[in-house]
Amino acid sequence: MPIERIAILGTGLIGASVGLALRSHGFHGTIFGWDPNPSQSAAALSIGAVTVTVEEPFTAAEQSDVILLAGPVFTILEWLEKLAPVLREHQLVTDAGSVKGALCEHATQRYNGQGQPGFLPGHPMAGKEVGGAQNADAALFQDAVWLFTECARSEQMNPTARLLADEWRAWIAKIGSRVIDMDAARHDVLCAWISHLPQFVSTALSALLEDEFSADDTLLPIGGRALREMTRLGSSPFSMWRDVAYTNTEAITHSLLALEQRLAHIRENLKTPELRSEFDRANQFRLSERFRKP
Amino acid sequence: MPIERIAILGTGLIGASVGLALRSHGFHGTIFGWDPNPSQSAAALSIGAVTVTVEEPFTAAEQSDVILLAGPVFTILEWLEKLAPVLREHQLVTDAGSVKGALCEHATQRYNGQGQPGFLPGHPMAGKEVGGAQNADAALFQDAVWLFTECARSEQMNPTARLLADEWRAWIAKIGSRVIDMDAARHDVLCAWISHLPQFVSTALSALLEDEFSADDTLLPIGGRALREMTRLGSSPFSMWRDVAYTNTEAITHSLLALEQRLAHIRENLKTPELRSEFDRANQFRLSERFRKP
Repeated sequence: MPIERIAILGTGLIGASVGLALRSHGFHGTIFGWDPNPSQSAAALSIGAVTVTVEEPFTAAEQSDVILLAGPVFTILEWLEKLAPVLREHQLVTDAGSVKGALCEHATQRYNGQGQPGFLPGHPMAGKEVGGAQNADAALFQDAVWLFTECARSEQMNPTARLLADEWRAWIAKIGSRVIDMDAARHDVLCAWISHLPQFVSTALSALLEDEFSADDTLLPIGGRALREMTRLGSSPFSMWRDVAYTNTEAITHSLLALEQRLAHIRENLKTPELRSEFDRANQFRLSERFRKP
Repeated sequence: MPIERIAILGTGLIGASVGLALRSHGFHGTIFGWDPNPSQSAAALSIGAVTVTVEEPFTAAEQSDVILLAGPVFTILEWLEKLAPVLREHQLVTDAGSVKGALCEHATQRYNGQGQPGFLPGHPMAGKEVGGAQNADAALFQDAVWLFTECARSEQMNPTARLLADEWRAWIAKIGSRVIDMDAARHDVLCAWISHLPQFVSTALSALLEDEFSADDTLLPIGGRALREMTRLGSSPFSMWRDVAYTNTEAITHSLLALEQRLAHIRENLKTPELRSEFDRANQFRLSERFRKP
């Protein structure tokens, strides 16, 4: 039984990009699109990311094989709660949330048990510093990694839901992503280092420069490519990152503190040979094979 | 009297790129190339960045109208000292060093006075995370800013040297850069914020991740574009940045400390509404007109 109908709840950048990618890679079924902001679902429809927009997300979810929850973590949490009593065991809920521990914890009693819908937690490691369906891109997931963190009594998932989960994984591979499975707790620590930390550093640097240079209109562009790159994520929306900060606080706190200490170490060694070893380690990081594309 | 002969002392990335840019924009005179590493001057010659390599930098300098010093700050300082007694008042020394206060201080008694060569301190705000003539690029300075920080009794410069300085400025404009003049002290504080701070942050982040992930070969590429951008400068060579750290210590210390405090502020407010104001300020920084290209 293949996936014939998909409901995307949240047709912003990620949701609309998934719809576009599926359709451009041969998905010919129905894609229902809903967003709390109707202009977003209308935009998703106009670019062909969904085949129909709906005003009633519950009805669309009930009629779908797979329900993709895309949006900030707390929004996904809410949908997990609201959908659990409405859906049936032959249906699959999956998501694209940035933090997985909180979602898995929430899903434990509500999904994958007897008579309950299936839940396959997912996280595409792709995005942009700007949100919205208008920035959606069918190629967003090409050469990216899509993490899955099965949890919530995953092994007890209904066999029909399991088939849907396997097929969903196949679609993710088809749209160009490399699938990697890991534990939800490991996911959250890993993402704190490689995704959340870079975001908060870029936000801090941008906010600091905004304060330092507010009166000076002409000098900032001088910084060139390095400054543009290091502050690009400064454009990221609070609405998404608030939920990440709130649901992955411990791991983010740890990584931020480690970077603060590293910066202090460099600051205290600007005139000592220790500075060389910091550059050596940084050079090593960038040169190593493991930093190549996946 | 136009510039007919230029000596580039230091034909690495910047020196060789200047040579390439001049020649591709119509400079038909002689460009002598010298580098402490003979393979660098040979590489500069082979790509056409210089018209002839020399083994004797002093002789080449004595025969040139303009001497461009390109390299780490301390290397430029050494050349300023060595060349002062050798050159004559109708010659011009200019440079491409990243810190200007230390150079200006050093030049004060040796340049621009009666019977002394002219000195025009310059700093192209362009570069790459990799050095060497093999990475030189004629377009490196296109759409970049080239800062000049006249100092050392600049107003007393010999009239012939002044003409050379004016013509050098015209060449810099011709190779695509926007010329901006500022005070050397202001230059060093500005660059601490928009160039040196981003460098040390990227080094710290790269070194930290090198420590965290040294045993894990497969997970880092997951980070995608954001991680690659935020750590790109981690490749930068210590040899150049040691001198920057040593000669602009106070301003860099101040900017690093400010960022450490900002990161701590964000860390302490991951669950408070204050986090929103940090994102707002960061968004504002990126949205503002002043962040557009110069």
